[in-house]
Amino acid sequence: MASTAGQVIRCKAAVAWEAGKPLVVEEVEVAPPKANEVRVKILFTSLCHTDVYFWEAKGQTPLFPRIFGHEAAGIVESVGEGVTELAPGDHVLPVFTGECKECRHCKSEESNMCDLLRINTDRGVMLSDSQPRFSKNGQPIYHFLGTSTFSEYTVIHEGCLAKINPAAPLDKVCVLSCGISTGLGATLNVAKPKKGSSVAIFGLGAVGLAAAEGARLSGASRIIGVDLNSSRFEDAKKFGVNEFVNPKDHNKPVQEVIAEMTDGGVDRSVECTGNINAMISAFECVHDGWGVAVLVGVPNKDDAFKTHPVNLLNERTLKGTFFGNYKPRSDLPNVVEKYMNKELELEKFITHDIGFSDINKAFEIMLQGEGLRCLIRMDA
Amino acid sequence: MASTAGQVIRCKAAVAWEAGKPLVVEEVEVAPPKANEVRVKILFTSLCHTDVYFWEAKGQTPLFPRIFGHEAAGIVESVGEGVTELAPGDHVLPVFTGECKECRHCKSEESNMCDLLRINTDRGVMLSDSQPRFSKNGQPIYHFLGTSTFSEYTVIHEGCLAKINPAAPLDKVCVLSCGISTGLGATLNVAKPKKGSSVAIFGLGAVGLAAAEGARLSGASRIIGVDLNSSRFEDAKKFGVNEFVNPKDHNKPVQEVIAEMTDGGVDRSVECTGNINAMISAFECVHDGWGVAVLVGVPNKDDAFKTHPVNLLNERTLKGTFFGNYKPRSDLPNVVEKYMNKELELEKFITHDIGFSDINKAFEIMLQGEGLRCLIRMDA
Ligand SMILES: NC(=O)c1ccc[n+]([C@@H]2O[C@H](COP(=O)([O-])OP(=O)(O)OC[C@H]3O[C@@H](n4cnc5c(N)ncnc54)[C@H](O)[C@@H]3O)[C@@H](O)[C@H]2O)c1
Ligand SMILES: NC(=O)c1ccc[n+]([C@@H]2O[C@H](COP(=O)([O-])OP(=O)(O)OC[C@H]3O[C@@H](n4cnc5c(N)ncnc54)[C@H](O)[C@@H]3O)[C@@H](O)[C@H]2O)c1
Ligand SMILES: [Zn+2]
Ligand SMILES: [Zn+2]
Ligand SMILES: [Zn+2]
Ligand SMILES: [Zn+2]
Repeated sequence: MASTAGQVIRCKAAVAWEAGKPLVVEEVEVAPPKANEVRVKILFTSLCHTDVYFWEAKGQTPLFPRIFGHEAAGIVESVGEGVTELAPGDHVLPVFTGECKECRHCKSEESNMCDLLRINTDRGVMLSDSQPRFSKNGQPIYHFLGTSTFSEYTVIHEGCLAKINPAAPLDKVCVLSCGISTGLGATLNVAKPKKGSSVAIFGLGAVGLAAAEGARLSGASRIIGVDLNSSRFEDAKKFGVNEFVNPKDHNKPVQEVIAEMTDGGVDRSVECTGNINAMISAFECVHDGWGVAVLVGVPNKDDAFKTHPVNLLNERTLKGTFFGNYKPRSDLPNVVEKYMNKELELEKFITHDIGFSDINKAFEIMLQGEGLRCLIRMDA
Repeated sequence: MASTAGQVIRCKAAVAWEAGKPLVVEEVEVAPPKANEVRVKILFTSLCHTDVYFWEAKGQTPLFPRIFGHEAAGIVESVGEGVTELAPGDHVLPVFTGECKECRHCKSEESNMCDLLRINTDRGVMLSDSQPRFSKNGQPIYHFLGTSTFSEYTVIHEGCLAKINPAAPLDKVCVLSCGISTGLGATLNVAKPKKGSSVAIFGLGAVGLAAAEGARLSGASRIIGVDLNSSRFEDAKKFGVNEFVNPKDHNKPVQEVIAEMTDGGVDRSVECTGNINAMISAFECVHDGWGVAVLVGVPNKDDAFKTHPVNLLNERTLKGTFFGNYKPRSDLPNVVEKYMNKELELEKFITHDIGFSDINKAFEIMLQGEGLRCLIRMDA
């Protein structure tokens, strides 16, 4: 064990003291991990819309001060009692949802929605004792998604850490810890397009482009990108998207436009916008008889998905996915291997690269709708 | 070939002259089959809700005089030009939807929604020449669903006839030609419950009980029957249904009642009511992570299926099926074999048995909501 094991670690973290106010990079205390917990030295992190959403705290009860961050890669510093599958020095990806390996979901082949460690955006404390492990001069600082990766050290439940190949470059594979795996898995694990088939991707943000990357890996021949923002189209070509539709360019519903382009509809669609109309279009644009639509985007609280039931009776399938149906501990290591085998490309998702002290820039870039992923180097 | 081949046949048929008026059993003329058509001697037929619905003609443009009937079994009398897979003497089940074996749907492993021969409730004529083969004193009489089995002889496209084991008793397997296969296939081909799993069946009519029979064959251990009419529960026990819920007995939505009974939801559900609220409940009562809901019931024109998209994102699957996803020619012969092997029981579906001359009684029985299937013997 490192000499810091069992000790409180003082290190830099980006603390959000108030909703919507710039983070403050400053020294905090990180308590040692308790039972089934692991303390991780974060080397790289990146920013995801979910961080920004809860930092803005427009919809939810605000919980501050808080340390955000959930897309990251790091190295185990020390482990708490009862942790058997991880040891100091292991390379890990933290994940916002976990895998306890004991509950009905973890035991089911189909589900990754662990009863114990499923995403909980309201909880700002550790499960075991309902306390945070972060503090500053005795004042508690709350966790976010059980990961809080905007800190040089963080404490995470062992069930929320995927142990990966130590040869994998952490500055690349860190983006697999949330959005990219979500989009990729939505296609590879849920939509499952066949070689030569047609796939429509709604929303060409990082998640949608990862879904497109999944379609490319599956050998789909037509990958139709749908976005309200045509400036996304040029970059999307790198992800295998080879046809483009902007719903604003047409005076009929986009599902009809796609049906005309594809002789009745696409074989698969993956919705990565969070917009309810896009969800409905994504469903209605798949071919009857065999079409499968997969919803990924997180909707608003009051949205209603609405369609005529005949669209279902005509043998269309509608599914949703959470984290691309990947079980974090069991499956993420294999996704990292796909990158190591050069099957999967990750570099093209990383459009910005900054030092930790500039973390507020990452928020600005995202709020301006620029780029895909901004890599944040903890040591700079 | 029979001596009648190539000749007009005069025989008895039950003609519907006007919407909602009793059928008249009388002599009609049945022209010989044209290219790709087959003339079939019907031995047994039964009545399905769809016949009654179009006979009442409350919602649709009425098309009369018409010969209804689509659930039946018979023997090929003669075949038209180009028919190669059927010959006089073959035992067949007519089906309201067909399989051309040439279109994209027929070539897809997943779909049975043939482009050429898909159900068409408006068409009252044959495809090849847009003429009916029935007439009375020169007045044309329209077909129904391409089958018109309420006639001693009828002309059917070869793509809408399943050739079955000649040893199969036609007075039993005739019920496989519509509703029973629909419910059975919804479970066996689409919901696919695992051994030991829980299945909710919404609607305990013939279709729902066939879906329950499918759950029983699959080895489901909990088969929960849901119906607004508790008088259906006793008979449903014969079909493997072992728990019962009448939504009227509860002051909360039935999906919540089922979730409480099953620790979060059933593994599978099959909706066989045609009621939009039952469709929504059937979807929302399946377990997150792995639950699959299958819609079978035919909804009203203006119904909207409505749910919160989070119910999908939580990894529930929603599907619909048409004729239980069976391809009529490729798959029905195997369903008949399931009966021959004593895997599948059909006798319990046949609750009434009458002669052709009493056919209007079958309508009365169905309108009173009694029983499941009424067998109609053409020779009595
Ligand atoms: N289910 C999960 O596990 C999970 C994980 C991560 C992200 N997400 C969700 O995935 C979605 C996409 O995330 P992202 O980071 O790629 O977002 P993003 O904002 O970068 O991209 C969304 C894209 O969708 C486009 N869009 C919006 N409305 C549209 C419409 N009606 N039609 C067509 N295009 C439309 C936007 O122009 C944008 O380009 C979000 O809803 C996010 O919350 C889900
Ligand atoms: N998709 C196909 O290929 C296909 C083929 C044949 C029949 N069908 C359809 O299947 C459905 C069932 O057919 P059937 O012959 O068994 O009908 P049925 O009328 O005999 O049975 C329907 C049952 O549903 C019950 N019910 C109605 N509303 C309900 C609700 N809200 N909650 C719970 N129970 C409710 C009724 O009490 C009844 O017992 C119909 O809609 C029919 O059109 C579909
Ligand atoms: Zn994220
Ligand atoms: Zn679990
Ligand atoms: Zn029918
Ligand atoms: Zn066909």
